[in-house]
Amino acid sequence: MSSAVQILEPEADVRAAMRAIGAAARNASRTLANAEAERKNLALTASAQALRDRSADILTANALDLAAGKAKGLATAFLDRLALNPIRIEAIAKGLDDVAALPDPVGRVLATFTRPNRLVIERVATPLGVIGVIYESRPNVTADAGALCLKSGNAVVLRGGSDSFHSSAAIHACLVAGLNKAGLPEAAISRTPFASRLAVGQMLEGLGGTLDVIVPRGGRRLVERVQREARVPVFAHLEGIVHVFIDRAADLDKAVRIVVNAKMRRTGVCGAAETLLVHRSAAPRMLKPLIAALIEAGCAIRGDEASREADPRVTAATEEDWRTEYLDAIIAVRVVDSFDAAIDHIETYGSHHTDCIVTEDKAAAERFLKEVDSAIVLHNASTQFADGGEFGFGAEIGIATGRMHARGPVGVEQLCTFKYRVRGDGQTRA
Amino acid sequence: MSSAVQILEPEADVRAAMRAIGAAARNASRTLANAEAERKNLALTASAQALRDRSADILTANALDLAAGKAKGLATAFLDRLALNPIRIEAIAKGLDDVAALPDPVGRVLATFTRPNRLVIERVATPLGVIGVIYESRPNVTADAGALCLKSGNAVVLRGGSDSFHSSAAIHACLVAGLNKAGLPEAAISRTPFASRLAVGQMLEGLGGTLDVIVPRGGRRLVERVQREARVPVFAHLEGIVHVFIDRAADLDKAVRIVVNAKMRRTGVCGAAETLLVHRSAAPRMLKPLIAALIEAGCAIRGDEASREADPRVTAATEEDWRTEYLDAIIAVRVVDSFDAAIDHIETYGSHHTDCIVTEDKAAAERFLKEVDSAIVLHNASTQFADGGEFGFGAEIGIATGRMHARGPVGVEQLCTFKYRVRGDGQTRA
Repeated sequence: MSSAVQILEPEADVRAAMRAIGAAARNASRTLANAEAERKNLALTASAQALRDRSADILTANALDLAAGKAKGLATAFLDRLALNPIRIEAIAKGLDDVAALPDPVGRVLATFTRPNRLVIERVATPLGVIGVIYESRPNVTADAGALCLKSGNAVVLRGGSDSFHSSAAIHACLVAGLNKAGLPEAAISRTPFASRLAVGQMLEGLGGTLDVIVPRGGRRLVERVQREARVPVFAHLEGIVHVFIDRAADLDKAVRIVVNAKMRRTGVCGAAETLLVHRSAAPRMLKPLIAALIEAGCAIRGDEASREADPRVTAATEEDWRTEYLDAIIAVRVVDSFDAAIDHIETYGSHHTDCIVTEDKAAAERFLKEVDSAIVLHNASTQFADGGEFGFGAEIGIATGRMHARGPVGVEQLCTFKYRVRGDGQTRA
Repeated sequence: MSSAVQILEPEADVRAAMRAIGAAARNASRTLANAEAERKNLALTASAQALRDRSADILTANALDLAAGKAKGLATAFLDRLALNPIRIEAIAKGLDDVAALPDPVGRVLATFTRPNRLVIERVATPLGVIGVIYESRPNVTADAGALCLKSGNAVVLRGGSDSFHSSAAIHACLVAGLNKAGLPEAAISRTPFASRLAVGQMLEGLGGTLDVIVPRGGRRLVERVQREARVPVFAHLEGIVHVFIDRAADLDKAVRIVVNAKMRRTGVCGAAETLLVHRSAAPRMLKPLIAALIEAGCAIRGDEASREADPRVTAATEEDWRTEYLDAIIAVRVVDSFDAAIDHIETYGSHHTDCIVTEDKAAAERFLKEVDSAIVLHNASTQFADGGEFGFGAEIGIATGRMHARGPVGVEQLCTFKYRVRGDGQTRA
């Protein structure tokens, strides 16, 4: 009995504390929604300054996390992502300054229409409310996500990976210092003080109706769990099965440059190409040089029969390869019989993230841009442009492949909803 | 054992058939997403013509529903909503023609930005995909919802109330005739042939990942069930606790006209006022005439102490009254100490649907429009303008109070999502 009580008590504590965090965040969201742009920006720049001033404290906290991680036997790559240094801290601080410098997304008039009865109706951007961000042990996300939510007038509840507990806490303290300096409520950027998975479960349930949306930041397992279990809307993408389609009217030079960049510039990003489709009419001219360029750049090729015939270094692709997000220096290559077969392949195996056509045929390009149902469709440009920064959004909290509300890079504008303001002079309805 | 099998078999049939409907709708949605505006409009006008041509068949089907409803002892008001006649059928047909005449919402360029690297990025409206509509026994919704989804390039799965089974089937047959005439897939507008609640349950689960959004059309019980059980996003509002706030700087004449219209024009609509808040400074001048005008218009008043002192015909309001959507000729009246107290009341008891301020003080009006977090906020105009038609949307599938994607009247534009089209000339990322 007593051990059951010991287990139950902390659970109840976590539940109660998480509800309290949610309620405080909801409360703060009302203040934040009406906060002037200058006040939010002051909080951001003051947070950046606090990060710079407290650099030593943050590194001390980070050393604790790193030591614990080493003792736990965490992988080197994991520890590298966790590690901070003065350059990384300055980059985080600069990120906050950059978000402060963005135009304020709240209050933008998205549409205006004057009705025959002289009512003037405006659709105007307003914050979403309270955003939950669940992320892995990357300390910088604490600052990035906190800043984007603050800028967009939303309160945020942050739940970072437990292996970055001390680092995240130290960075979070800088954000709180910024909020204090600007006279904004501390609960505007809350951090769950719990390492337990129960805290995540509470967030997925919506913190008692508090959370308006959840954003997972991390690997496939995390995103999968959030998408499966969340009872509130989620902005995320599970994977980026990104295609480059070389149309029959493609320019070889452009094709090679785009494909090599799309695949190899960085292989671990969601906009990295995973499958290369080549129109059968283009194959005789294109396949060999494309494969050679990829191999020269260090990429392994898994191809269909035509690809293997074009280059003996290509190994055989299986059905599974068309569905695989390698996030590595590997690409699947397939020759398709027609434009329609390319679109069918993309709709069958793709993840509606980012897809590209390379062609000099404008009509084919327009058809591809129209018919491929992905968040981002490109003509004659690398898929690695799938990024909020490259879109001019300043920063992104992630890329969404869902169809509701936000799709593609989620920047501060997409963290807003809207309402209608109607101005009259006494109109009544007949 | 055999009776268990008898129960199980139809269940399995319904499940399998519903999945097949979902799969066909998903398939049709791809065709529909790329259908030209003219083709969709032809389907709509041909459907309207079919409704007119088959008017006699529809009335015969409706007579079956009415006879069954009477035998079942359904209420007169219910039967009245179910009943069709030539005028109502013509109104439904005209509704289809009106939707055909709306601008096409698909393919609208919502934003364009040219990046320093000369990439041209467009945010362009695309259909949501497949929409599920669950509604009560109002035959016209079959046509209205089918038309709005078709116009916005979405496939739709319709599930109407079982008491309108034959009427809905007859109207649905006209829509299918229109789709056939335009060469569009019949599955673009599907109707579940099942009266069982299991069909609804299947839809709430998303038809095996098919449905992108569900729209409930009906009373509180239906909406509540859908909001509680749906595993996909829902566009809906549970209730409209609509406030009119008479500020201290209100014009008496406008206040009386707006309040009487907001409450009494039609009491059963979601934009009907349910609570009247009066600033304490305005009360001596306003309260008596406002209450008198409402009573004269046939409205019962439940008020706080100040209201009861102003007029002895006012009965005492309880806490529950501030939370009640009467949808009837009843209004709750409360005197509030300040502008802030009015906003607090609205945030505490409101439903974020539609709220109005009556004032000649422009600053107070702007503050109200900014700070009240409702889908529609009005200044000096009746809350009964909360309607897609009045907003110029042509028609609406409902009004949403959720914060994601659609908020306020949901017209064809809100039944769209967007994607990004990126046009380059060989750009790669550094």
